[in-house]
Amino acid sequence: MTPFADAEKAGLYRAIFERRDMRRFRSEPIADEILTRILKAAHHAPSVGFMQPWDFILIRDPAIRKQVHEAFRQANEEAVQLFQGERQKLYAALKLEGILETPLNICVTCDRERFGPVVLGRTCQPDMDLFSTVCAVQNLWLAARAEGIGVGWVSIIHADQLSAILHLPQRVVPVAYLCLGHVDDFPLEPELQTAGWLPRLPLEDVLRFDTWDGKNPGNLSIGKK
Amino acid sequence: MTPFADAEKAGLYRAIFERRDMRRFRSEPIADEILTRILKAAHHAPSVGFMQPWDFILIRDPAIRKQVHEAFRQANEEAVQLFQGERQKLYAALKLEGILETPLNICVTCDRERFGPVVLGRTCQPDMDLFSTVCAVQNLWLAARAEGIGVGWVSIIHADQLSAILHLPQRVVPVAYLCLGHVDDFPLEPELQTAGWLPRLPLEDVLRFDTWDGKNPGNLSIGKK
Repeated sequence: MTPFADAEKAGLYRAIFERRDMRRFRSEPIADEILTRILKAAHHAPSVGFMQPWDFILIRDPAIRKQVHEAFRQANEEAVQLFQGERQKLYAALKLEGILETPLNICVTCDRERFGPVVLGRTCQPDMDLFSTVCAVQNLWLAARAEGIGVGWVSIIHADQLSAILHLPQRVVPVAYLCLGHVDDFPLEPELQTAGWLPRLPLEDVLRFDTWDGKNPGNLSIGKK
Repeated sequence: MTPFADAEKAGLYRAIFERRDMRRFRSEPIADEILTRILKAAHHAPSVGFMQPWDFILIRDPAIRKQVHEAFRQANEEAVQLFQGERQKLYAALKLEGILETPLNICVTCDRERFGPVVLGRTCQPDMDLFSTVCAVQNLWLAARAEGIGVGWVSIIHADQLSAILHLPQRVVPVAYLCLGHVDDFPLEPELQTAGWLPRLPLEDVLRFDTWDGKNPGNLSIGKK
């Protein structure tokens, strides 16, 4: 077992800390060999019972993307009404997708019956297949960052509309709709942090000990730096 | 924007390809500074509306772990009955957790009301907060691999039992129950692959074009190598 060299560790941590949810893209295409590396990384995600429930729909057709964009527009019009006052103004000013600007959208789906019906490890937590698919999305996102490719996750779309546009069979669920493309720059911090939407929580505030209300045994320096 | 050096990219890909779901652990504790780096990586996951819905419950208390182990044992007894014949024998022979052998278990939870009630990006996909929490789990898993620490995800436990044992408030959901520890070695391929449970799918088989039933435009070499 060869330990990771410092530069290898640094590369992983750099991808994790410098990954951003992107909304602004350049229009030039992503080279096939880069895209292959990114997709291979996604495909090597963990999956419950090794069921590998994901598919990656690579969407370039502008006609399909226009339909998805229209579905986003409708869902976002509903969403903006849920916020009030200053918060609503701030929301309305945020750019939340790049569906039409990017050369490539990817819908990551979950086939809920792959290798089924009974899946090892999913017998009492039926959503483990969705979670496996999300792990694939996170792998894809990190690999894209290392390749200098921006990724934005568009969650403001109704799943049933997306399923209809992409002709998904009943058993297949759209988990993530992603925009991918080259970008001018990755911001230093998340856009929602910069825009004053929410602050990053201190790590200490999300650590708990033994139970939800348990006390830090006191001899631990975890999360202090 | 500084591109990733080759060694940095290689480090990320190595973590992705060499990450394993581990069930066999050594008993020595994980150093605080290593654990802090792993948790910091998890905390820098993407989250819908930057809500950072996760908490990390670090469970060392053997009494708590014994209760969790008993919950696993019961759920696994139910699970084994769902398989038949040779498949059942193979299932029963698999080691599926290391709850008591590891020095540390971590329950990663999702607070469904954090910064709520209305969360940007979650207005029409309410499970986006669970998905954000899963992204944190995947970050944790990759960082642990780079630090030489094994992680195993135990999904064969009923969520309500886990919530009771860990005193989770109603609004908080347990997303992942993880075992962490030093290991002798990381296997070259997933244990379920080696055991003949399921094969790894070729990447090409999980790629689709424009829609679910769309054809490869033909000029793409994606996934061919």
